[in-house]
Amino acid sequence: MTKVAAIIGGGVIGGGWAARFLLNGWDVLVSDPDPEAERKISEVLANARRSLPALADVAMPAEGKLSFASSIGEAVTSADWIQESVPERLDIKHKVMAEIQKYCRADAVIGSSTSGFKPSELQQGAARPGQIFVCHPFNPVYLLPLIEVVPSPASDPAIRDNCVATLTALGMKPLLVRKEIDAHIADRFLEAVWREALWLVKDGIATTEEIDDAIRFGFGLRWGQMGLFETYRVAGGEAGMKHFIAQFGPCLAWPWTKLMDVPELTDELIDMIASQSDAQSGMHTIRELERIRDDNLVGMMRALKLNKWGVGALLAEHDVRMGRTAPGAGLVETQNRQVPQSWTDYNGHMNEAHYLEVFAAATDRMMEIIGADAAYIAAGNSYFTAETHIRHIDEVHAGSNIRVETQVLSGQGKKLHLFHTMYDGARLLATGEHLLLHVNLETRATSEPLPTVAAALAKYVNAHANLPKPEGAGRAVGQRP
Amino acid sequence: MTKVAAIIGGGVIGGGWAARFLLNGWDVLVSDPDPEAERKISEVLANARRSLPALADVAMPAEGKLSFASSIGEAVTSADWIQESVPERLDIKHKVMAEIQKYCRADAVIGSSTSGFKPSELQQGAARPGQIFVCHPFNPVYLLPLIEVVPSPASDPAIRDNCVATLTALGMKPLLVRKEIDAHIADRFLEAVWREALWLVKDGIATTEEIDDAIRFGFGLRWGQMGLFETYRVAGGEAGMKHFIAQFGPCLAWPWTKLMDVPELTDELIDMIASQSDAQSGMHTIRELERIRDDNLVGMMRALKLNKWGVGALLAEHDVRMGRTAPGAGLVETQNRQVPQSWTDYNGHMNEAHYLEVFAAATDRMMEIIGADAAYIAAGNSYFTAETHIRHIDEVHAGSNIRVETQVLSGQGKKLHLFHTMYDGARLLATGEHLLLHVNLETRATSEPLPTVAAALAKYVNAHANLPKPEGAGRAVGQRP
Repeated sequence: MTKVAAIIGGGVIGGGWAARFLLNGWDVLVSDPDPEAERKISEVLANARRSLPALADVAMPAEGKLSFASSIGEAVTSADWIQESVPERLDIKHKVMAEIQKYCRADAVIGSSTSGFKPSELQQGAARPGQIFVCHPFNPVYLLPLIEVVPSPASDPAIRDNCVATLTALGMKPLLVRKEIDAHIADRFLEAVWREALWLVKDGIATTEEIDDAIRFGFGLRWGQMGLFETYRVAGGEAGMKHFIAQFGPCLAWPWTKLMDVPELTDELIDMIASQSDAQSGMHTIRELERIRDDNLVGMMRALKLNKWGVGALLAEHDVRMGRTAPGAGLVETQNRQVPQSWTDYNGHMNEAHYLEVFAAATDRMMEIIGADAAYIAAGNSYFTAETHIRHIDEVHAGSNIRVETQVLSGQGKKLHLFHTMYDGARLLATGEHLLLHVNLETRATSEPLPTVAAALAKYVNAHANLPKPEGAGRAVGQRP
Repeated sequence: MTKVAAIIGGGVIGGGWAARFLLNGWDVLVSDPDPEAERKISEVLANARRSLPALADVAMPAEGKLSFASSIGEAVTSADWIQESVPERLDIKHKVMAEIQKYCRADAVIGSSTSGFKPSELQQGAARPGQIFVCHPFNPVYLLPLIEVVPSPASDPAIRDNCVATLTALGMKPLLVRKEIDAHIADRFLEAVWREALWLVKDGIATTEEIDDAIRFGFGLRWGQMGLFETYRVAGGEAGMKHFIAQFGPCLAWPWTKLMDVPELTDELIDMIASQSDAQSGMHTIRELERIRDDNLVGMMRALKLNKWGVGALLAEHDVRMGRTAPGAGLVETQNRQVPQSWTDYNGHMNEAHYLEVFAAATDRMMEIIGADAAYIAAGNSYFTAETHIRHIDEVHAGSNIRVETQVLSGQGKKLHLFHTMYDGARLLATGEHLLLHVNLETRATSEPLPTVAAALAKYVNAHANLPKPEGAGRAVGQRP
């Protein structure tokens, strides 16, 4: 049976929860007195539809039904999960909890999105304190999986287990917090950084942009894949975690932050951290962790490069700086690059899709050379690939330097027929034969290229006309040689 | 002419600097009394060779020459850049700086990797204080681009400009710090978080692993692409940055962190932050920033999924949980998924390489169905794709749900001939015809499939034998219909 979530408070956070439930097949009832709630939630939902399914490589469940309730009672009566995301004031939270518990099922989870209050504070005066938990999400809730689940001694263990299982089924990462504390775990770090950042801005040490750059071009990338302790474990190297902590112990007495109430770094605390770190990461050697970290960083940075954002924009600029080979008279060198680790697959060699990625980049480079470049495309003209034939002749591994040479087989009118050959040194790896059609990007119909491009292309057609037809051109899959 | 860098102190940080210079074509001379220095640097260099060029989509410069000097003097005499990464003690740094300046060029940059000392402290007693700068990197230095460049009032402006230009040419992100301060910028945040984390471990609130999870499944991902202020600007939504800060102002008085020395949130400070944030991000609307953020997060999370690490491991598990369609009697549904935003290109539609990515995943799924699954591959058997033919028939855009049906054209002996058809609803998008060869993964030679796989495959060969030959099968590129 379709499960039902009640969303009490439909701002950015409530809307994110609604989207997370809906896209995982739950029906959702929203209660929010704001007349703009429906518009606001529909905007969050539009963002979520655009990105949450993009994380999956399978089809997600059919989307649930979204309704708006006229009262808290109407929203929560049949709900399996009630999520409270009202303003951060304890008196308001208490009033809302009382209203929820007047109508909701006794076995439902009541989660609060509070950033700071402890569950025991939320439970004060409640009819059934045992069903109220802190379930603290992170914006955007539809994408970031972390949920801090904080019970109090009054919490019902069966409802707690159901809470954790439900969040897991929603694709989230429930982090069950052992002891309640103001601001839970993550927000304590965010608050510490926020306070330090306010000082830096106030004292004119750095602007907001410089602070953001100091984060996203450095440790921010590390923290997206390992956290604080695992990162330091790797940095500490073979000498180990204990040595690393002891070495940085003296900094605790230095004015490196305004945060000067510091725990004493006793042997006991050092042992505690080192043994917890062993339990967490001891299954990998430092060398392994280094490679895991590096592959993660490369993957994340390459993803940002595709979006030309932050560190990715920097990488794209650096590629331009490192330059490309100018085209000569014969075949055109259209690619020259190393094979990233992330391009290899379970067979231990470059995955077939990346052969086409390289050939597609070679085609782009050839288009650029004949003037069908970014400006040409922005003005509404481009070439689309209509047909492709690839022969995988030899394997290639991560770290190898590959090179593509391109022959223009024909290029009259709307058609462009290219033949790419991929090498590792002198070793033939693959060929790619491609038929492209010139397209008007407005009508999406085929069209003649503009005269400048046609003329530039003709030069290569003529220059390559006397070259022999490459082996494998015109071949169909499985054809006898 | 090839430029020369002298690396004084060859640990993890010095080794990272050496790798960054070498892979960008500089010659490098290392001075380190540690007899293990050569081994340590070669290990860092091996990691760097594996990952730095993987960030580039062009060939990097030819690698420079690595040598080991027997003294600081020998290392620095002809160097354009001298990087000091000796232990974090001011007396040692002063001694090393004096020795460097006895031999080095007066126009060379002397960068110090110090995490905490101010440049004016490093310059104390120096022969030429103007050439000494803090150039503080982040581990791994060969991958993370951030360098905090900190001058003092005594710094030479021409050498400072050369320093920034050189770091940029190395693909790095020099952040010129306006005023010197203990621990510069980023390490102040790291130190605040470190101190808060020590408290949480000491007080039994969380283990090291739980703290790391609280970071990497939540705000760590945000910080890899935007920083603190831009993230909050987006979270604040249309109400704006000023409203957001004012709203969270009261938390500054709450015990959300042990960092209790807090700046007063005056109107002046709020205005300062809001106007800096406008200068930083005001060229994008909040809606645009939301989509930029979401596309970045999806890209980074998908990259981690490929590595099955952290948030990526969670996503992979969730795919399994959402399940796949069981194969029926007719054509086999081998893919069903949404097109991610990151798969589209400058032409506004799914990029050609991702057509093959989807077809390759369909092939993997078909292999899994006939029992050529992860265990079969781990035992040393697999199918390799030898030849591929793709027809791009219609365009498809981000957010569309695509589906692949697979027909087994033949599957006798070592050969497997598959034909995939891709749809968006009933709309035909593309076809993929693939010839695969069964391979022994040890010898990398073709071989017969194991009997279980051969038998499972035969079922599909027989079931599909009476289906009509699909349109386009056996076609060569550009062939008349």
